[in-house]
Amino acid sequence: MSKTDSLVYVALGGAGEIGMNMYLYGYGPENKRRWIMADAGVAFPDMDSSPGVDLITADPAFIAERAHALDAIFITHAHEDHVGAIGRLYPQLDAPVYAREFTAEIARGKMEEAGQPTEAVKTVGAWPEQVEVGPFKVGFLPISHSVPESSALVIDTPAGRVFHTGDFKVDPDPQIGEPFDPDLIREVSKDGVLALVCDSTNVFSRHAGRSEAELVGPITEMLRSQPGMVVATTFASNVARLRTLALAGQAAGRSIVVIGRAMHRMISTARKVGLLTDFPDMVDVNDAANLPAENVMVLASGSQGERRAASAQLARGGYGKLEMKEGDTFLFSSKTIPGNEVAVAYIENQLAMLGVDIVDHDGGLYHVSGHANRPDLETMHDLVKPQFLIPMHGEYRHLREHAKLGASKGITPVIAPNGTMVELTGNEPKVVDMIETGRRYVDGSVMIGAMDGIVRDRLRMAMRGILVVNVVLDEKSDLLGDVWVEAKGLFTDMDGQEGALQTQLEEGLTKELTEAKRKLRADDEAVEKLMKQAASNRANRLIGKKPDTIVMINRVED
Amino acid sequence: MSKTDSLVYVALGGAGEIGMNMYLYGYGPENKRRWIMADAGVAFPDMDSSPGVDLITADPAFIAERAHALDAIFITHAHEDHVGAIGRLYPQLDAPVYAREFTAEIARGKMEEAGQPTEAVKTVGAWPEQVEVGPFKVGFLPISHSVPESSALVIDTPAGRVFHTGDFKVDPDPQIGEPFDPDLIREVSKDGVLALVCDSTNVFSRHAGRSEAELVGPITEMLRSQPGMVVATTFASNVARLRTLALAGQAAGRSIVVIGRAMHRMISTARKVGLLTDFPDMVDVNDAANLPAENVMVLASGSQGERRAASAQLARGGYGKLEMKEGDTFLFSSKTIPGNEVAVAYIENQLAMLGVDIVDHDGGLYHVSGHANRPDLETMHDLVKPQFLIPMHGEYRHLREHAKLGASKGITPVIAPNGTMVELTGNEPKVVDMIETGRRYVDGSVMIGAMDGIVRDRLRMAMRGILVVNVVLDEKSDLLGDVWVEAKGLFTDMDGQEGALQTQLEEGLTKELTEAKRKLRADDEAVEKLMKQAASNRANRLIGKKPDTIVMINRVED
Repeated sequence: MSKTDSLVYVALGGAGEIGMNMYLYGYGPENKRRWIMADAGVAFPDMDSSPGVDLITADPAFIAERAHALDAIFITHAHEDHVGAIGRLYPQLDAPVYAREFTAEIARGKMEEAGQPTEAVKTVGAWPEQVEVGPFKVGFLPISHSVPESSALVIDTPAGRVFHTGDFKVDPDPQIGEPFDPDLIREVSKDGVLALVCDSTNVFSRHAGRSEAELVGPITEMLRSQPGMVVATTFASNVARLRTLALAGQAAGRSIVVIGRAMHRMISTARKVGLLTDFPDMVDVNDAANLPAENVMVLASGSQGERRAASAQLARGGYGKLEMKEGDTFLFSSKTIPGNEVAVAYIENQLAMLGVDIVDHDGGLYHVSGHANRPDLETMHDLVKPQFLIPMHGEYRHLREHAKLGASKGITPVIAPNGTMVELTGNEPKVVDMIETGRRYVDGSVMIGAMDGIVRDRLRMAMRGILVVNVVLDEKSDLLGDVWVEAKGLFTDMDGQEGALQTQLEEGLTKELTEAKRKLRADDEAVEKLMKQAASNRANRLIGKKPDTIVMINRVED
Repeated sequence: MSKTDSLVYVALGGAGEIGMNMYLYGYGPENKRRWIMADAGVAFPDMDSSPGVDLITADPAFIAERAHALDAIFITHAHEDHVGAIGRLYPQLDAPVYAREFTAEIARGKMEEAGQPTEAVKTVGAWPEQVEVGPFKVGFLPISHSVPESSALVIDTPAGRVFHTGDFKVDPDPQIGEPFDPDLIREVSKDGVLALVCDSTNVFSRHAGRSEAELVGPITEMLRSQPGMVVATTFASNVARLRTLALAGQAAGRSIVVIGRAMHRMISTARKVGLLTDFPDMVDVNDAANLPAENVMVLASGSQGERRAASAQLARGGYGKLEMKEGDTFLFSSKTIPGNEVAVAYIENQLAMLGVDIVDHDGGLYHVSGHANRPDLETMHDLVKPQFLIPMHGEYRHLREHAKLGASKGITPVIAPNGTMVELTGNEPKVVDMIETGRRYVDGSVMIGAMDGIVRDRLRMAMRGILVVNVVLDEKSDLLGDVWVEAKGLFTDMDGQEGALQTQLEEGLTKELTEAKRKLRADDEAVEKLMKQAASNRANRLIGKKPDTIVMINRVED
């Protein structure tokens, strides 16, 4: 165990996936390290791997066990995959949460939802303001992204300065909030940066990113040319885009309607902190239904095909009194996140059935990404000129590609997926430990582990269906009545006979149990094993599936 | 009911989705129509809508009820979504199956797998050969696509000629099989085509499609430049691509290895019918493991991220003795089908962890689509100059867009999603009926209906988990012992107590049942209802979920 002071970095989430960002920096001798955390985000469940789950967070166990040594949590920006878990995880972390004003407002909302103290969230000003906690001094350096007040973290430690980008793009005119400022980044980097810990999500995008400002013209033009109502969707948190869309609508002589809770919350939060001063007056959705369609522009949540969101409701038939019809237009001012393609196509097909024309980001006229593309990452490398590069936020392939990019520019990279503890002291970054990481699921009102077997059981039931076998034995272990079988999620009506599966299984299982030795029947475990095997084999013969089976053995006395 | 002869078209599958193509043409008076079918394909299940299911087919009920009037089934080409269901559905259809040689070979394989008579599949030569069945004369007109011997159907009826494209692309040099032949299409269309029934999948792709021949150069060049082993994946049925890849590999001085059952089958079928005469000799996968990596080129099945396919096995660690390592390259000579993005990314990440470089179709150098893009569809419209256009094979949005494209060129279109029966006699296509359509699932060894509730139950169990409540009552309807609860797919260890959920539910349910009136306890239905409600409410309070509940009531006599 190293007794000398050193600086370490370890990701608990976000380095190995896109989503659920959670990064730790530790300083001190190994047995007395002090820690800070950057971000506490969520990821979203899917039927393939996490059915029934509400939200996914990184497993904070490593730092929760050291909560006494966690000095602070810093939230870089207000996206769910950076701030979404703060309320749920706060009880285990129990450290002050620092963020800039807009982000802090959103973080307080998360705390409130989870019944945690909102006053734990402290508002911090932008760089050069710094928060001093333990051996760290941390400043929020404004950087452009697709949500207001996004910040890189400038982390000063006795071992040197770390530049933690958070999510970012290179946008000289992001419409809301501070532009990407090369001079400022050069300035904070001029005395040398030990490590650049850098967003990797768009490393495979070859062309330089474009500015939010480039959208204003095309969107206004498009809105002017449409004969009917236009509904536009984007991420609710992309306040600059909401503003662009609304101002374009206004310029095209349209009344602005906003539908969806998430969008209303983001707009009111941005207004509250003074970031959104020129957003047009909004018209109520039901009043808008009485206006001529060509005078209406609707902003609707649900750009990813979410079933309950406003966009999906419109596609299904209507939202309040508002209905879309032939001649109307639906604009996806957004990118479809991988995994959501089918859900988005579903909505597009429903809209097509209503006769609605769809305009999407194809061609890039109506959407720009919020992340730094490959050439933008090089810009960042060139500005910061760090000694080490740690690619963060990305799947493994993104981290690897970003590391290769850094190496090609003479920067020493280290690929550090979740759990890889890297020491940043010395001439080379050094992997000093591998810690256990994982995922926690918010499931109803409880948290479960991804590896607890609970979700595995759900997937098994979904794939195999289930049988319940009910047995009643008397005190001599003789069967009272027949074995009783219930089935769920299985085809049961063979040869047109309703419940034929159960009937045939009951006959077969009754026979097997009756013919078993009394000694076996006296043993619950043996009975369970016999019934499971018999049920599985017989079901396989009858319907070609081996269902999961629950056996319930009742023993009654005369 | 119309007593005059008329020609009708109706899709049972494929018009409203990409996949499970099944189209019908009928001729005669309504009560005595004769029918032919074009294609009998499958679609593939997913966890979101069809967990546990093996394959999806269109519901053939409408034509199965009229099987005596079904004169023939024509298979346009050997893709799963056109031929995959023929074996499974044959018993209900019981009509001769016609296809060209390669397709017929594949179709016979499907019949064999399903235990159906392979001799029901008849091999037909290409146009101008025609099959005369009932009032129809049908010819297989060679057309380019991504599988050998793809054909359009030229369907002559007393009402006029129908040009049914099947899947196609405009490729003057498809490398294997016949090129797209504008003169031939013009020739068969010159006396007037009543209806063009036309592939719609790529109607949103703006630029003209490219030829398979364009890939040969770039792939060869890429293979020459790679320092290690190269593994390439594509659709197994894309025999021309397999040839292109193999010949490029050979030109680059590499031995050719083929792994994956589907690829071997396609190659041997293509050889058997004389379509693949210059495919290089193959090296066994385990022998290849001993060759220098730079001398090896592997063709592997599983371009869509299928978990059990050869590509996935390589990504997980190895296939036979063959392993990929740092310096090797993996080429996706394929497009990712929407819905498969996450599965493909999973493999890419596993390969990245092995240090393998990934090359994909980004930029279009190493893959071309097998379907006609928007300008290619216009080419087809211009060659055939039909009276009516019926867009087929596509989601609703594709059908609608294709119809708009046709209308813009002065052709009368009709959007006819699955179940829409269109009469093609007269000056306008006329919707004359809406018939019931749907999906059937191959589930283990049985077929189930998509709306039977079986899959809905699986999805519910996956989302909610399940409780089984076991009750034993004596002849006076008094509870013997306590209520017994089992849980699956649920968090049960509240406050660190193993099985706390079951224990607390058992206590609560026992109390409720004991306190219920004897009259209620004497009534199985009432007991079941009470137990279900109590279990649901209590589980919701304890863990925030309302599980599905199965109640089993045992009544025993003293």
